[in-house]
Amino acid sequence: MNLTAPVLAGDRLALSRLLTQVENETAQGYAALEELFAHTGKAHIIGVTGAPGTGKSSLVNQLARYYRQSTDGRSPCRVAVIAVDPSSPFTGGAILGDRIRMKDLTGDPGVFVRSMASRGLLGGLARTTASMAQIFDAAGYEVILIETVGAGQAEVEIARLAHTTLVVEAPGMGDDIQAIKAGILEIADILVINKADQPGVENSERALRSMLDLSHPVPHVFKQPASGKTIQADELRPHPGLPEPLPFWATPIQRTIATQDTGTAELAAAIHAHLTYLKQSGEWVYRDRARLQAMLDSLLQEALIARWRETITESHYSDILNSLLARRITPFEALSSMLVDVNARTT
Amino acid sequence: MNLTAPVLAGDRLALSRLLTQVENETAQGYAALEELFAHTGKAHIIGVTGAPGTGKSSLVNQLARYYRQSTDGRSPCRVAVIAVDPSSPFTGGAILGDRIRMKDLTGDPGVFVRSMASRGLLGGLARTTASMAQIFDAAGYEVILIETVGAGQAEVEIARLAHTTLVVEAPGMGDDIQAIKAGILEIADILVINKADQPGVENSERALRSMLDLSHPVPHVFKQPASGKTIQADELRPHPGLPEPLPFWATPIQRTIATQDTGTAELAAAIHAHLTYLKQSGEWVYRDRARLQAMLDSLLQEALIARWRETITESHYSDILNSLLARRITPFEALSSMLVDVNARTT
Repeated sequence: MNLTAPVLAGDRLALSRLLTQVENETAQGYAALEELFAHTGKAHIIGVTGAPGTGKSSLVNQLARYYRQSTDGRSPCRVAVIAVDPSSPFTGGAILGDRIRMKDLTGDPGVFVRSMASRGLLGGLARTTASMAQIFDAAGYEVILIETVGAGQAEVEIARLAHTTLVVEAPGMGDDIQAIKAGILEIADILVINKADQPGVENSERALRSMLDLSHPVPHVFKQPASGKTIQADELRPHPGLPEPLPFWATPIQRTIATQDTGTAELAAAIHAHLTYLKQSGEWVYRDRARLQAMLDSLLQEALIARWRETITESHYSDILNSLLARRITPFEALSSMLVDVNARTT
Repeated sequence: MNLTAPVLAGDRLALSRLLTQVENETAQGYAALEELFAHTGKAHIIGVTGAPGTGKSSLVNQLARYYRQSTDGRSPCRVAVIAVDPSSPFTGGAILGDRIRMKDLTGDPGVFVRSMASRGLLGGLARTTASMAQIFDAAGYEVILIETVGAGQAEVEIARLAHTTLVVEAPGMGDDIQAIKAGILEIADILVINKADQPGVENSERALRSMLDLSHPVPHVFKQPASGKTIQADELRPHPGLPEPLPFWATPIQRTIATQDTGTAELAAAIHAHLTYLKQSGEWVYRDRARLQAMLDSLLQEALIARWRETITESHYSDILNSLLARRITPFEALSSMLVDVNARTT
């Protein structure tokens, strides 16, 4: 059964089924992604990342509610939430009170909440999250909030999908700890100090600000090669001629108290300012292009490897690997003998 | 000037120069790596990873001192330290007192300390650290300690180089924070609670133990595809037929007070037990093989992409990318038209 037509028509059940197909990486799911691709590229993907205990789920909840209201004369957005954090109330991982609070959203037909069980496979998780975001995008969800726990490779890769990445902190997590997050800060477009009514908020803000100052303000060129192929994307990009985006986005620090809905509107305004920056600077197109290029590069890699695989026998490959393991040949010698067959074929 | 002969003969100045060449990824450096490859595969690479403030530099210092002593009837090891953490006293980033303490090691000809400035490029850092470890290995250093800050993609990739990975914690870092480290715990072969004389040590140990218990004891198969190509390594490994290692290593928790040299011998014993496990279970060979295979796969990818690049003109590639960006074609359609030229050539 083809699900793409009903998904485009707004059928929630079809959407839910398609998300499952994509999460399971079925052939049908991939075929549907191909069909839906022409409808993508419109949604604003917002990553919300932070440690457990920072209250980022409540913040996602409030942002979703905010976007569902008709504010500033704009019509309410349709909002999708993809929760990748296994400890998130959205995924049923948190205490009951939190889960109930999240129920705010579940009756609203303009909101679709989808949680993903972490599946161990880092790469797989980033890829399926990207695919799900594409489906929500094609299905007409204008805002896609992706909630991740914000530590580890998979989460950073997932954050790279986003147009705008919020990094959520909370006061009183210890100054030593701030430094551990240097890697996370690099991906922040907006820093949020949630639970801003708790003691230590001044210290946290000061620590974050000094870290922001330390990270000498580099031109905001595309720092996210996307699609999880972080290293390869830059190295393998065959034709780098991307346009340079306009220079700067100064990462702001926003204070919120999500449980009291304090600061939500101000945060949404900062998110909107970032969106405006992305569009006006050309970085929206730049990021989209770089993301698609990285996706294409990774498809290309897979195809080239698959093609190469047909040129070498298993026993030949195994012999080469054994010689390498025994240090009888060097890595480049191994490479040469693996590629001999390809040469023989192509000439 | 060829540096490999003097490096193999124990010339420290030549070693230092070669490390710089490799760090700068020069052609000479790569040529030397090829020449030295036959001499690698003997060193025990120990990753020491943890947040700033856990005292991991002091711990590395004590471990290096320990291995320099002739204990248990074994002759003293030659020890290399690669400090990748920019806040490490080894790299000059920490307060003066720490730096002076580290001087313990600098007069000892059996110790070589090398610090690496973090260079922004994640992939590059992991690759050059791997190359440096290979050089120390070839140069006859039996123990190579790699110190990393333990957060972010680069650090996890670097930790994957190690045969044995220590994850260092300290008491009083807050229970909320423990969860953020779930990703790091996955790579731990030994958990160390340093500063074990500080309050909160019981809580920390309980928290860590419950996290260890939660992470259902999976068979200790090779979970580290190595070489920084984390995702690709698994996907692209053409012939997975690696032998299965013996089932289990139960991650121990060791308490230390590095500043007082308390617990160093016990920690070294745990490290030695892990080494014995690696050798007896066959996992040493297994990890070595998987690491070399990942390296080979990544060389292969680069070679295949380079070869493909010659088959397509820049303008053709750019046209395809623009069509994709405009959503006129799908990713798989883009892939097909990029590969047409290859087909035309090979048929």
